[in-house]
Amino acid sequence: MLPAGLLGSSVVAASSANLGPGFDSLGLALSLYDEIAVETTDSGLHVEVEGESAGELVLDAGHLVVRAVERGLQAAGASVPGLRVRCRNAIPHSRGVGSSAAAVVGGLAAVNGLLAQAGWTPLSHADLIQLASEFEGHPDNAAAAVLGGPVVSWTDVSGLPPKFSAVPVRLHPDIRLFPAIPEQRSSTAEARVLLPAQVSHQDARFNVSRAALLVVALTERPDLLMAATEDVLHQPQRAHAMPASAEYLRLLRRYDMAAVLSGAGPTVIALSTAAELPAEALEYAAANGFAVSEMTAGEGVRWSSGTAVPS
Amino acid sequence: MLPAGLLGSSVVAASSANLGPGFDSLGLALSLYDEIAVETTDSGLHVEVEGESAGELVLDAGHLVVRAVERGLQAAGASVPGLRVRCRNAIPHSRGVGSSAAAVVGGLAAVNGLLAQAGWTPLSHADLIQLASEFEGHPDNAAAAVLGGPVVSWTDVSGLPPKFSAVPVRLHPDIRLFPAIPEQRSSTAEARVLLPAQVSHQDARFNVSRAALLVVALTERPDLLMAATEDVLHQPQRAHAMPASAEYLRLLRRYDMAAVLSGAGPTVIALSTAAELPAEALEYAAANGFAVSEMTAGEGVRWSSGTAVPS
Repeated sequence: MLPAGLLGSSVVAASSANLGPGFDSLGLALSLYDEIAVETTDSGLHVEVEGESAGELVLDAGHLVVRAVERGLQAAGASVPGLRVRCRNAIPHSRGVGSSAAAVVGGLAAVNGLLAQAGWTPLSHADLIQLASEFEGHPDNAAAAVLGGPVVSWTDVSGLPPKFSAVPVRLHPDIRLFPAIPEQRSSTAEARVLLPAQVSHQDARFNVSRAALLVVALTERPDLLMAATEDVLHQPQRAHAMPASAEYLRLLRRYDMAAVLSGAGPTVIALSTAAELPAEALEYAAANGFAVSEMTAGEGVRWSSGTAVPS
Repeated sequence: MLPAGLLGSSVVAASSANLGPGFDSLGLALSLYDEIAVETTDSGLHVEVEGESAGELVLDAGHLVVRAVERGLQAAGASVPGLRVRCRNAIPHSRGVGSSAAAVVGGLAAVNGLLAQAGWTPLSHADLIQLASEFEGHPDNAAAAVLGGPVVSWTDVSGLPPKFSAVPVRLHPDIRLFPAIPEQRSSTAEARVLLPAQVSHQDARFNVSRAALLVVALTERPDLLMAATEDVLHQPQRAHAMPASAEYLRLLRRYDMAAVLSGAGPTVIALSTAAELPAEALEYAAANGFAVSEMTAGEGVRWSSGTAVPS
C-alpha cells in the first residue's frame, strides 16, 4: 500500500497510427500533449478534467485514465488508499489522433511518478507498451506515445495475453507534419467501419512492400513518401464513412503531398518536405471543418514525482 | 545497327528474395557471381555456357541471357548483325537464389558494354530494374542484382506494363549471411506451390508489421532479426513441398538464428550476428544435401566494354 500524499505526473503525446500502409504497425507521435497528475489521498476517488472533452467524460472509476492508473498500480504490485486524478487535455477525442492511447500511457506513466517517490521500481518502456496496448489490442498508438517519434510495432499472438513490442525509428529532419483535425466529431466517421476479414494475397503484398518502403522513406528517403504511403488494406474501405477526409486526402495526393488517414480517421495527416500545403487544400480544409496546423514529431512520455504537472 | 566486333561484359550477383515477410518486396544480393560476355559478330547467334547447368541449357535464341540481350538492344533502339554470348555460371539454377534474375540483369548490363563502346547512352539502373522485372513480374531479385545489397522494391500496377521500382538500403555490418543451397534440384521443391488467392486481414497485417520491422532490423537493429523474419504469407504454404528446407529452417530458429526461405526456396538463408551456425544445424544440412557457406552482401551489377569478362 502506497501512502497518501504522493504525487505523480506525466506529459504524453498525441499520435497517428497506420500512416497508410502500416496497419496496426507504424505509429508517429505528434507534438500535442495531454498532462496528467495523480495524487494518492486518504480515501475515495476524485477526477478533474479540463480542456478537450471536459464535461463529457465520466469522472469515476470508468474514466480511462483512472483505469490505466489502477492497472499500472496493479502491475507494480501496489495499491493506494485513495486517488485524485487531474487531466489537462489538449488532444481531441474520437478524431484518430491517439487520445485513448495518450490517456492510458499517461495514466501508467503518472503511476511511475508515484512509484518513484515511494522508492519502488518504475514500469519500463516495454511494460508501458505492453500494458497500454492491452487496453486496445494494438500497439501502434501506444508505442508512439511511449517512445515518441515514429515507431514500428508488432504483436506476437502466440501466447495470452499477446506480447506487444515496438522499436523507435528516426524521422528524417526534412519531413514536415501537417495534421488536419476535424473540429467537430463526425457521427458517420465514428461509425465503426468493418474491414474485410479476407483480402487478396496481392493486396497483402502491396501493403507489405509499401510498409517496408515507408520505413526507408521516413528515415532516409523523404522523396519516396508518395509511393511509400499507398495503402489498399484500410483507407479505401473507410472512405465512404468519412467523405470529406477522403476527398481532402485525394486532393493533397494530387499535389504530390503524401497524405494518409491518421489511425482510423477522420483526421488526415500530410507528410511532406514542402514548407506549406497548397492553397486549394487549405481552402478545402477550412470549408469542411478541418483545423490544419503544422506539428513536429512528439516526444516520448515523460513522468515526474512530487511536483505538479511538469511543464 | 551496331557494328560487329564490339564486346560488352558483366558480373552479376545471386540474390535472395522475400527474406521471410517481404514477399515480392525485399531482396538481398549475395556474393556469388555469374559472368557474361556478349560480342557483336557478322551474323548468327552463338551461345557458350560453362559452369552451373552447362549442357542443360538451350543454346539458341530461347536462352534467357540471349533474350535479355535482345530486349536490352531493343530498349536502346539498337540492333546487331550477329551475336556471340558466353556465360560463366556460378549461381545454381532452380534453387531460389536468383539465377534467372542474374541472367537477365547480366544480359542487359552486358548490352550496356556494347552501347558504351559504340558511343550510345547506356541503360540506367532504373531501366535495368524495369526491364529485368518485366521478365518475371516481380522486382525483388532483379533489383538486388542491379543495386546490390539489400533492397526494398515495389510495383505500381496501375498502368501497363507495371512500373517496377526499388531503393537500396544498407546491411548492418554485424549481420552475417549463411545460405544453405541444396546440392541437387528437388522435383518436389520445383513443383509450383499455389499460394492462396485470399488471406486473412490479420495475416496481411502480420506481414506488414514484420516487413517494416525487417527494414529496421537489417539496417539498424540486428537484435530484432528473429521477430522481423516471421512470415505467414508464403513460407508455411511452401513447407510441404520442401520438407528438408522447412525442418532446417525450424531447427535454426530454435537456436535463435533468423532463417528464411531464399525466394521460393528450397535454399534457406540464415541472417545472424553469430560467427557460425550451430553444430546440429550443420549436421542436419550435411545429412540432407545442403551446401552451407558464409557469403557477404553481393555488389550491384558491373559492366564493361571492349574487354573480356571483368574480374
